Amino acid sequence: MEELQDNIQFQLTDELIEKVEVLVEDQNDKELKLLLHEYHYADIAEVLDELDHDDAVYVIKLLDSGLTSDILMELDEDNREKILKNLSAKEIAEEVEELDTDDAADIIAELPEERQEAVISQIEDEEHKAEIQELLAYDDNTAGSLMAKELVKVYETWTVAGCLRRIRGQAKEVTRVHSIYVVDKEEKLIGRLSLKDLIVAKSDQKIADIAKDNVDFVHVNDDDEDVAKVMAKYDLEAIPVVDDNQTLLGRITIDDIVDVLKEEAEKDYQLAAGLTGDVEADDSIIELTRARLPWLFLGLIGGVGAFIIMEGFQEAFSQYAVLFFFTPLIAAMAGNVGVQSSAIIVQGLANDDVKGSVNNRLIKEMLLAALNGVILAVFLLLFIWIYIGELDKAIAISVSLVAVIIIAGLIGTFVPLFLDKRGIDPAIATGPFITTSNDILGILLYFWIAKLILGI
Amino acid sequence: MEELQDNIQFQLTDELIEKVEVLVEDQNDKELKLLLHEYHYADIAEVLDELDHDDAVYVIKLLDSGLTSDILMELDEDNREKILKNLSAKEIAEEVEELDTDDAADIIAELPEERQEAVISQIEDEEHKAEIQELLAYDDNTAGSLMAKELVKVYETWTVAGCLRRIRGQAKEVTRVHSIYVVDKEEKLIGRLSLKDLIVAKSDQKIADIAKDNVDFVHVNDDDEDVAKVMAKYDLEAIPVVDDNQTLLGRITIDDIVDVLKEEAEKDYQLAAGLTGDVEADDSIIELTRARLPWLFLGLIGGVGAFIIMEGFQEAFSQYAVLFFFTPLIAAMAGNVGVQSSAIIVQGLANDDVKGSVNNRLIKEMLLAALNGVILAVFLLLFIWIYIGELDKAIAISVSLVAVIIIAGLIGTFVPLFLDKRGIDPAIATGPFITTSNDILGILLYFWIAKLILGI
Repeated sequence: MEELQDNIQFQLTDELIEKVEVLVEDQNDKELKLLLHEYHYADIAEVLDELDHDDAVYVIKLLDSGLTSDILMELDEDNREKILKNLSAKEIAEEVEELDTDDAADIIAELPEERQEAVISQIEDEEHKAEIQELLAYDDNTAGSLMAKELVKVYETWTVAGCLRRIRGQAKEVTRVHSIYVVDKEEKLIGRLSLKDLIVAKSDQKIADIAKDNVDFVHVNDDDEDVAKVMAKYDLEAIPVVDDNQTLLGRITIDDIVDVLKEEAEKDYQLAAGLTGDVEADDSIIELTRARLPWLFLGLIGGVGAFIIMEGFQEAFSQYAVLFFFTPLIAAMAGNVGVQSSAIIVQGLANDDVKGSVNNRLIKEMLLAALNGVILAVFLLLFIWIYIGELDKAIAISVSLVAVIIIAGLIGTFVPLFLDKRGIDPAIATGPFITTSNDILGILLYFWIAKLILGI
Repeated sequence: MEELQDNIQFQLTDELIEKVEVLVEDQNDKELKLLLHEYHYADIAEVLDELDHDDAVYVIKLLDSGLTSDILMELDEDNREKILKNLSAKEIAEEVEELDTDDAADIIAELPEERQEAVISQIEDEEHKAEIQELLAYDDNTAGSLMAKELVKVYETWTVAGCLRRIRGQAKEVTRVHSIYVVDKEEKLIGRLSLKDLIVAKSDQKIADIAKDNVDFVHVNDDDEDVAKVMAKYDLEAIPVVDDNQTLLGRITIDDIVDVLKEEAEKDYQLAAGLTGDVEADDSIIELTRARLPWLFLGLIGGVGAFIIMEGFQEAFSQYAVLFFFTPLIAAMAGNVGVQSSAIIVQGLANDDVKGSVNNRLIKEMLLAALNGVILAVFLLLFIWIYIGELDKAIAISVSLVAVIIIAGLIGTFVPLFLDKRGIDPAIATGPFITTSNDILGILLYFWIAKLILGI
């Protein structure tokens, strides 16, 4: 049992980090290798992410590229960038030789323009080099930018026996064989089969006879998020990628899709929280400020807007100072309702389950907001009436609250739907954007209606 | 090429839905089968989700269980529930017979207690029944509740040839063979190999010689989110599940993990937006009210708190009405900063990349908030000074803003860290919770400091 250890039990400890730092300090290469070889490359990457990057570079240069290439892929992007800066084009090329084409292309794409050529020219395996250059040519966020060239391909005319013999060669360079793709002599994708089918089949059967022709595939220019949705929806663990002529170009595996899904979810979450760009807790104060300040400015402008509105109503409400004390409540409710309704729409759009017309959505949201608004308004009315004892003000404030909540709900529903129709990411409509606009509008509406009701 | 169609091109059209509705109306079973058999079960599920559920039940009863069992798994949970209500225990058992044990157990678990027994008793395949009962016994959100019993298992003593012969049998009932798990005669997991390894190996080699002994695995009681993290981190597409004795119990495949990751991300997103429970845009107004109202109540209470505070300062600030006009600004900034800082912590905790001590976090956040606060305060100061022309008020308001932003940032950072340490989901600390508490505290702080500076 010794060599079996539950991966969930790996914990990044300060002891381990220190141990590595000391060994690097002492340049005790032998011990360092012994220690690190006990760990999975993803765990070693976590350790290196914690070292200052001279030490990390030392470790990368020490271990053999078979291992370090995998470690590099697992590092935080900023750390990887720092480390690659300290490696020669030749050293990077050696790492790249060890990687699948998709990872290789990703790493090279992260390098500054001028270094990319230098690294590529150092790649010895000509086929590998050509494939990487092909992948680098595809646009970001397309199936082409996600796919790998490594796959197992057989011709329809082969027999099971001949096939098994031949794919032994191909399979060696493919980390995981999900599907075997069947092509005709023009390299066009015409079907697929699994290793399982091959093993279960009789050895003299023709591939054409046992191949499944209902093969799923995507086009090289399809959007990567669409590819992710399709693979998740159809429970696919790999999907082949073709061009306009149905020619098999590569395949996308689900582990890449997991990353796409995670990134997309994190992006939406951050936008909802008022953070631009992909920031992490460990980023520098400058990076974090860059992500946070723009939204705070928006909030500042909104607040100034609210001030101007309230000042405008100062005269009219000189006898009704109490109304001003409820503006934070009005603003908060308008903001909360707006975020709730927009978040539901944004998530629905992301999952493709927002159906029916925009009007139906708005009518539904109006009913929903009205229901919530009335319930809340009743409590507010009772509180004000009892607390201040002036029914007219209580009614004015409560009725305005209902109106504000309804409008806030409608805006929160409409804006993301509108942005989505315009091809803009609806996620930007959540968070500070919606709260700020709802704050101003809510307060304005509040005073208007109160004025009306109180007959000022 | 005809039979190949790009799945990304499937669009759920009203035409298709109507076509199905008409065919159901006319009870035109033949046409209906012909039409639906053109589509993937996941697509058919999308259609059924749009039908009213009598029609959906009709379709389910029409198609054969081999197909409908897959369709059922893809339906929205509420729709599936409605449909299962209309199927007899025998009919549900037939569907269950077609499903892998993990899906089968999930479906049965969704049934009301009393029906579960009835359905299980109707399952004919005794082994399948026993396995499902075993899975039903594991707690929710554990590896046991995620795993399937279907896997390919070989004994270390077998030869490659004998192994290939024997797994032909096992493989038939396993949809996807990710790994072949090697066990000793006590059924203990001692290694793994891939079909690829088996095919590449010589037929007279012993399994023990070609098996990899560095097999990853999880314990049956491990938390499902931890399993998801591990599989994503180590890029695993399947992981075996063992008990305390290292006995191989089942395996978890990555498609289940994709669901876990998506659900987790959606839950955090909804909490940040002030939504409880897993609601969708298409849920009923009642369901949506249940999800939204509690948070709005929180907001209402916060607003009332703000009112009471402002009323308390009314006397003192009778000459400074203008200060009250900035309370929405103060509240908004306190809320935004709180959400930003808490969101970064929540996401960091979810990705296990919040390292270092709590104190360091707080110090960093304080510096960050101070930097942002000062920048914003300068603009506010200039605006008020120019607009109102009273420097003392401008200073009082701006300085308070900085203090409010710092406190808001600290609360937003501390609360989720604190909840996490206490084993409470930190995600509840984002959204309305943090904005509401920050609103009140912010406004209180604002008046205190203004009072101090203005020497009232």
